[in-house]
Amino acid sequence: MDEFMKIAFEEAQKGYAEGGIPIGSVLVHQGRVLGRGHNKRVQQGSVVLHGEMDALENAGRQPASIYKESTLYTTLSPCPMCSGTILLYGIPKVVIAENRTFRGEEELLRARGVEVEVIDDSACYELMQKFIQEKPALWNEDIGV
Amino acid sequence: MDEFMKIAFEEAQKGYAEGGIPIGSVLVHQGRVLGRGHNKRVQQGSVVLHGEMDALENAGRQPASIYKESTLYTTLSPCPMCSGTILLYGIPKVVIAENRTFRGEEELLRARGVEVEVIDDSACYELMQKFIQEKPALWNEDIGV
Repeated sequence: MDEFMKIAFEEAQKGYAEGGIPIGSVLVHQGRVLGRGHNKRVQQGSVVLHGEMDALENAGRQPASIYKESTLYTTLSPCPMCSGTILLYGIPKVVIAENRTFRGEEELLRARGVEVEVIDDSACYELMQKFIQEKPALWNEDIGV
Repeated sequence: MDEFMKIAFEEAQKGYAEGGIPIGSVLVHQGRVLGRGHNKRVQQGSVVLHGEMDALENAGRQPASIYKESTLYTTLSPCPMCSGTILLYGIPKVVIAENRTFRGEEELLRARGVEVEVIDDSACYELMQKFIQEKPALWNEDIGV
């Protein structure tokens, strides 16, 4: 796991420790972390703060020029909401720890010119599997099922 | 303008009065308002709370069965982020006041089975035009330009 995915995974672990959904993310601009975050459905009762959204929110208002040189790291394949947000801001690259638990809109992202890299990290996968076994209803709620 | 789009427009006007981006939205379940909101980029420094997202956030955590019977009203054609969110939650119908100012992901929504209705309301259009003339940089930031 590279240094930025490690941060995303730390965020996921923080979310799990809080009783939340263990998905974390970090937005990186030219080697510098702009924002990090994790899913806040449980902690803030939020339906929009998936891990990726929380990382972007914590990065704050950025000019388009910055997004266009940034990479978003996420512990899980991005859902339609997070993928749409990547498209809105023109983020050119997404690094995904795993997509075995859930496969988001990777094809749509690729079709729109986003570089999508899937690492298939087992630590992120195992954390999600543990969580889903413990709280299946919460997981379903998070993906609109 | 029907009663629900009137609420979305009131939200847009509230946003304008606050010095923000005048886009409003309301989530309606079987004739009952679940949540209403408006763009919070200026007011909260938010990069994720577009009008539609704010309405969904204010509606709070809902079961999938509720989203699947709901309609989202918005004063402006939904961007990729908001469209992705509509897809995530399986909201089956979106009513759009206007898409002359900005045309979002209407085709993607239709391709995925969402019913998209465009009213072409001139009051919503004129409010956006006035705002864009006054604050073009803010508008561009909001759509990732």
